[in-house]
Amino acid sequence: MTPRSPIEYRDASAEVRAVFDDIKRTRQVEDVNNFWKYLAHDPATLKRTWESIKEIMAPGALDVLTKEMIYLAVSVTNGCAYCIASHGAAARKAGMSEAMFAEVMAVTGMANETNRLANGYRVPVDPAFE
Amino acid sequence: MTPRSPIEYRDASAEVRAVFDDIKRTRQVEDVNNFWKYLAHDPATLKRTWESIKEIMAPGALDVLTKEMIYLAVSVTNGCAYCIASHGAAARKAGMSEAMFAEVMAVTGMANETNRLANGYRVPVDPAFE
Amino acid sequence: MTPRSPIEYRDASAEVRAVFDDIKRTRQVEDVNNFWKYLAHDPATLKRTWESIKEIMAPGALDVLTKEMIYLAVSVTNGCAYCIASHGAAARKAGMSEAMFAEVMAVTGMANETNRLANGYRVPVDPAFE
Amino acid sequence: MTPRSPIEYRDASAEVRAVFDDIKRTRQVEDVNNFWKYLAHDPATLKRTWESIKEIMAPGALDVLTKEMIYLAVSVTNGCAYCIASHGAAARKAGMSEAMFAEVMAVTGMANETNRLANGYRVPVDPAFE
Amino acid sequence: MTPRSPIEYRDASAEVRAVFDDIKRTRQVEDVNNFWKYLAHDPATLKRTWESIKEIMAPGALDVLTKEMIYLAVSVTNGCAYCIASHGAAARKAGMSEAMFAEVMAVTGMANETNRLANGYRVPVDPAFE
Amino acid sequence: MTPRSPIEYRDASAEVRAVFDDIKRTRQVEDVNNFWKYLAHDPATLKRTWESIKEIMAPGALDVLTKEMIYLAVSVTNGCAYCIASHGAAARKAGMSEAMFAEVMAVTGMANETNRLANGYRVPVDPAFE
Repeated sequence: MTPRSPIEYRDASAEVRAVFDDIKRTRQVEDVNNFWKYLAHDPATLKRTWESIKEIMAPGALDVLTKEMIYLAVSVTNGCAYCIASHGAAARKAGMSEAMFAEVMAVTGMANETNRLANGYRVPVDPAFE
Repeated sequence: MTPRSPIEYRDASAEVRAVFDDIKRTRQVEDVNNFWKYLAHDPATLKRTWESIKEIMAPGALDVLTKEMIYLAVSVTNGCAYCIASHGAAARKAGMSEAMFAEVMAVTGMANETNRLANGYRVPVDPAFE
Repeated sequence: MTPRSPIEYRDASAEVRAVFDDIKRTRQVEDVNNFWKYLAHDPATLKRTWESIKEIMAPGALDVLTKEMIYLAVSVTNGCAYCIASHGAAARKAGMSEAMFAEVMAVTGMANETNRLANGYRVPVDPAFE
Repeated sequence: MTPRSPIEYRDASAEVRAVFDDIKRTRQVEDVNNFWKYLAHDPATLKRTWESIKEIMAPGALDVLTKEMIYLAVSVTNGCAYCIASHGAAARKAGMSEAMFAEVMAVTGMANETNRLANGYRVPVDPAFE
Repeated sequence: MTPRSPIEYRDASAEVRAVFDDIKRTRQVEDVNNFWKYLAHDPATLKRTWESIKEIMAPGALDVLTKEMIYLAVSVTNGCAYCIASHGAAARKAGMSEAMFAEVMAVTGMANETNRLANGYRVPVDPAFE
Repeated sequence: MTPRSPIEYRDASAEVRAVFDDIKRTRQVEDVNNFWKYLAHDPATLKRTWESIKEIMAPGALDVLTKEMIYLAVSVTNGCAYCIASHGAAARKAGMSEAMFAEVMAVTGMANETNRLANGYRVPVDPAFE
């Protein structure tokens, strides 16, 4: 059993099952997605990552939709194909309309452009922003 | 006059002044920030970049605060010091509280982590996300 | 013959064959992998890259396994699918166990997270680290 | 008290002090470094990040030195100035000699180069690596 | 109609068709490529992006071939598979020979390497470059 | 003597001096820049990196100016402050006018934007580009 294959619930240890169960309960889903089935090769990382995400993505000062759109913008910036697909789906589930998706993409694209213009022109930080 | 110094309003051409005036009017500010004063070395890029940002950052399906927090998350991911400072300030001006800032950081950090876990474990996209 | 196809040994020039022979001899392999067969479209880059890698990846102050795990961590950070696959295989060949792989991933993920937290909170370098 | 200043122990809440105490005890240091003093603006992220790092960076299948060198390689790849300084110091404390540092840099540089050559030549993954 | 499918000319709105027509006329092509057919889900971004690219990629102080090679080098650095394929094709159409392609790759690879060596050794900018 | 200080010619070993001499002769400069003085802490990497750069940056199918502008575009994309300063200076020395600089920046910025739009919209490669 190498990390190159998913670990299904039926083949999982009790430790892994406990995490899978909590993911399914928290997200109200039938099955966990591939990310978790691959992380299951390292139960400590599976547990730590899930508990961190559960804490971070819970509604707080920001709602779930805003958090998922930020997650998507970062994943697009890094070019992570898996994360773009999974967090795009999560954002839509949380209420992202196609018009919202288009605006997330537009802002993400523009930020990536002006980040480089600021680098290239070596713009010093304004005293007002310090 | 090299790109290594800002162009102030008093030294700017009519073309550059027109953009500076529109920025000040749109954002209700006394002066434009350094980013624009450096881009002013290339009036075509100054004008195009401002008009794109003006269109993209206007309230639409997403409000200004959400857009600025996404801009900040991308800038943090790319490590653009200028943009982190300027869009951090812009997000605060648009209403980002310290609690919201902390959650933007937490989500951005976690997304950067799981983007790499998904890469490293070579997780295939779930059919449900295609 | 465009860069979009590999150059096999039988079709290679004497200059390319000399590099392929040295790779096979050094690594004790039957055939070179695709990376070298594509680089063979530019014999100068093929030769320079191989000689650099041969020098850098030889055991020195660090052993081969440690070097391959660092190579893997960088490739995961950059999201290079080819390099993740090839250096994952190379690290395993050099002795990386599944437990070691899991720890390389955990460290790589966490470093990517805290790199962004440090950026976002604009943390100044401690005098002790200068 | 904005995120733009460190929170010192004397000004910290009991919750933050508990984390600071654990960092000092675990690492056998007099004071925590700036990273933690800035994260202290968000006690939940401070606690979660410290507990994750404590778990991940403990000796396991890999020793602490190897983990710190991987952390450094990722930070160099991302260009995080703070993390390069702090994890460079941590790696040296864990035993990284100047010769080891030089090899970490050489491997990191070369991996960043060949990651792009593999991208640019669009090299397909060898069946043997799947 | 989700962003996960291209919008063909026959199904496009008048607004989208106007952009497609201008792309086809400017580039002297029979059909637009997939990038534009997907962006067509957001006509405002389609129009803004096309007009920006049309302005930026027109011959000026730099010729089209030089611009396309720079575009390719950036896309390779970011690991954008689509952009590597499309701008590789565009650069070849503008006159990039295989020898030129090989040199773009060699420079891009080396820049990615030395960017990290400069980061890792924390090299301060020479006064002469300020 | 740690990597945190430059090695000047007067303090350098014969091996390092030989590389410094070749850089000065090849580039017709009085002194080498900081990058080389820091790499001198690792004579093997100093020599290998210089010989690679000397080979790659020599005029070939592309002239020196084009190569330096590509180097600059990559450095801006990666946000390497040292390399932006040093290769900006090198490109100007090789003949880059301010108008050319402005176009390098505009292309680099736009490529970084459309790389993310292509990622975010998950655009498949056109058969014509394969």
